[in-house]
Amino acid sequence: MKVAKFGGSSVASAEQLQKVAKIIQDDKDRKVVVVSAPGKRFSDDVKVTDLLIQLGDTYLKDEPYQGQLKVILDRFREITTELGISETIIDEIKTGVERIFASDDSVALKMDALKATGEDSLAKVLSAYLQSLGLKATYLNPQEAGILVSDTPGNAQILSESYDLLYRLRERDEIVVIPGFFGYSKTGKLVTFSRGGSDITGSIVAAGVRADLYENFTDVDSVYCVNPTIVDQPKQITSLTYKEMRELSYAGFSVFHDEALIPAFKADIPVCIKNTNNPKGMGTIIVSKKEPQPNPVVGIASDTGFISIYVSKYLMNRELGFGRKLLTILDDEDISFEHTPSGIDDISVIIRESLLTEEKEARIISRIKEELDPDTVTVERDLALIMVVGEGMDSGIGLADKATHAFTKANVSIKMMNQGSSEVSMMFGIKSNKVNESVKELYHIFFEVN
Amino acid sequence: MKVAKFGGSSVASAEQLQKVAKIIQDDKDRKVVVVSAPGKRFSDDVKVTDLLIQLGDTYLKDEPYQGQLKVILDRFREITTELGISETIIDEIKTGVERIFASDDSVALKMDALKATGEDSLAKVLSAYLQSLGLKATYLNPQEAGILVSDTPGNAQILSESYDLLYRLRERDEIVVIPGFFGYSKTGKLVTFSRGGSDITGSIVAAGVRADLYENFTDVDSVYCVNPTIVDQPKQITSLTYKEMRELSYAGFSVFHDEALIPAFKADIPVCIKNTNNPKGMGTIIVSKKEPQPNPVVGIASDTGFISIYVSKYLMNRELGFGRKLLTILDDEDISFEHTPSGIDDISVIIRESLLTEEKEARIISRIKEELDPDTVTVERDLALIMVVGEGMDSGIGLADKATHAFTKANVSIKMMNQGSSEVSMMFGIKSNKVNESVKELYHIFFEVN
Repeated sequence: MKVAKFGGSSVASAEQLQKVAKIIQDDKDRKVVVVSAPGKRFSDDVKVTDLLIQLGDTYLKDEPYQGQLKVILDRFREITTELGISETIIDEIKTGVERIFASDDSVALKMDALKATGEDSLAKVLSAYLQSLGLKATYLNPQEAGILVSDTPGNAQILSESYDLLYRLRERDEIVVIPGFFGYSKTGKLVTFSRGGSDITGSIVAAGVRADLYENFTDVDSVYCVNPTIVDQPKQITSLTYKEMRELSYAGFSVFHDEALIPAFKADIPVCIKNTNNPKGMGTIIVSKKEPQPNPVVGIASDTGFISIYVSKYLMNRELGFGRKLLTILDDEDISFEHTPSGIDDISVIIRESLLTEEKEARIISRIKEELDPDTVTVERDLALIMVVGEGMDSGIGLADKATHAFTKANVSIKMMNQGSSEVSMMFGIKSNKVNESVKELYHIFFEVN
Repeated sequence: MKVAKFGGSSVASAEQLQKVAKIIQDDKDRKVVVVSAPGKRFSDDVKVTDLLIQLGDTYLKDEPYQGQLKVILDRFREITTELGISETIIDEIKTGVERIFASDDSVALKMDALKATGEDSLAKVLSAYLQSLGLKATYLNPQEAGILVSDTPGNAQILSESYDLLYRLRERDEIVVIPGFFGYSKTGKLVTFSRGGSDITGSIVAAGVRADLYENFTDVDSVYCVNPTIVDQPKQITSLTYKEMRELSYAGFSVFHDEALIPAFKADIPVCIKNTNNPKGMGTIIVSKKEPQPNPVVGIASDTGFISIYVSKYLMNRELGFGRKLLTILDDEDISFEHTPSGIDDISVIIRESLLTEEKEARIISRIKEELDPDTVTVERDLALIMVVGEGMDSGIGLADKATHAFTKANVSIKMMNQGSSEVSMMFGIKSNKVNESVKELYHIFFEVN
């Protein structure tokens, strides 16, 4: 059994939905379908979810919203007309929105219900369209499916009993179409996941039904091993592990909404990223484990906007609790650190520049001086991190050698290096303005030579 | 003005003391001399301080100790006889020991006074010998010199007012010989520094008199850039910075008792390591700052006996306080960590294996599992750290490249890498059984090729 999730661009128009139906028809194992709300049809287009949020804002300001509602209804009407199916969904949306506005629920719950209308309606449309093609298909409301969540509007957390409830979907002898992005609390209220949450629904459902595969259909053929804006037409990654995916998405690869994969990851379900516009393509498969490769490097990611706080103190490493105290000062300012490369008597803390306001920085530096009595504290800005990612680096000889040689060839000075004992990645810190030449040389060395 | 400190092997015999006297005579700036207790004359010999400790143990067990005392007296008698000076010191030691045993002081204070007898007596002997050579020299008791310390037997900490008191030594128109290893509390009790504390005395005195140079005479010509038991006749280091020295001494270079240099370091006094048996040799000078070098690498150190605790958890870097909580668990077990290389969702803590008893390890692992809910926790043993040390690595391009290439040539897999933004060192973690071949290749690349 496969769970197939289709993202916003895959369900943006009737033409796209025809491709989706074809994909579902092509493999009888695709028994559970999860859908997003219609996304952009062209670059200036507005996603249905954004239209719904604007509608909600207008309603909250007590301004006339009929014009905005009409835009949404028109988008769905265009789809049903082109697909040649019933228009009943238009009235359902209209009635639904009015019912949400009239309810006694909190503003947060109303907005959740409103935002979820895009996914919910699209699931109904797709189900009707599949039926019109002669397929045995049913729309399934998340409540009926068993997606029970915490009572935290806009940030639903799945309740563990959901998985057993979802497992019963295996008994159904039909294709079920489930709207993504939301579940229901135990008191029966609709609550949405965080933005991008259709990926979360897909991952939860795949875990619940113990799918053989969770297929995530988007508009790209696969994940590339390096940012295509830096290297022209880079190689595609055919297979990567969860850990590798996560290290890549950390530094600039927006493959997935980060939390989305946790349920699938914990249930050990392989995930395949495929292109709705090119379903025959290999795609990229994400697995828990893979066989050791002769070249373990799967990708090179980079991101800018990092800052380093450097603290040195003679005999630091004899001082019990120095590192912990330093991290406590950051915790107190709600700042999570990225890395802490250290020497014997010095330690650097790498953090994202965006987390550090001027006030926070001043407080942190002053507390470090007062509480840790260091010899020096300095702040270095404009740093970029480059991650060379691949599981199994510990079995390889010469990988660090190759990577560092790329920086020499690019004439770039390495400010920091950090490689954990996991060896999923090597991290290099350099000046931000040196990223492109470094990534190009790394790509050349790991993917072009050999 | 120079402060010259002579270590145990430099004052082990009359023959060595004659060399010491010659060294003092050779430079009229050597106005302050600090001495250790007589050390080993040959490899199976016993240091006087160890003889004194054994004597104390026997006394505490209420057993006859006259035989042991005689061995100590004989060592000093041999020295005075060969130097042709008065034997009064023999009676002084005998009377002194009896007085210590008979005193009302705590056992800890008695043992401190007993242990200090070696340095104190040797200072008197050297002073008498210098006088016999016609030099204007005086033995100076640390109390009279102004070395005031905390009331913590066996672990004296210098009190800050000592420095001003010591500064007055500049006014003396004679050579003063001060015994190392101990000072006096404000209540007038003799208290010793931690073992090896003659280096501490030398460093404190050098800081107090604002010496132009603190000369530390030992039995090696200089610091080598790599362990001579791994590489045959390696190059000598002529100049290194405090930070470099500290990084080197961390991993296997026993140049100095670690804490010893703090007073000199803080007062910015250069330190020179010289050989009593070859005083014309260049030695190695330790300074605060040095000019940038074309090859910034000054040395390669290695040490075994490390262990890595590896913790991974999906989305770890989103979890505020994860690193701090992990270090708190170690703090609670009184374990200081060495390094914490990290990826995105994993972190390793490198600690010295000797700190981790089986019980502590079990408690730590169980607390990590309970309190941090990680995906995996594993422990890797038999790790060695290799430090490539040199200030100014951040201005160089290609240093990491060279270093990692050495590991490739040695066919060694790098388990960890860590380089702070200070760039005083690059750290590499490898399996312990691969240290020698790695260090040899690193030496070859950094010191032989070019």
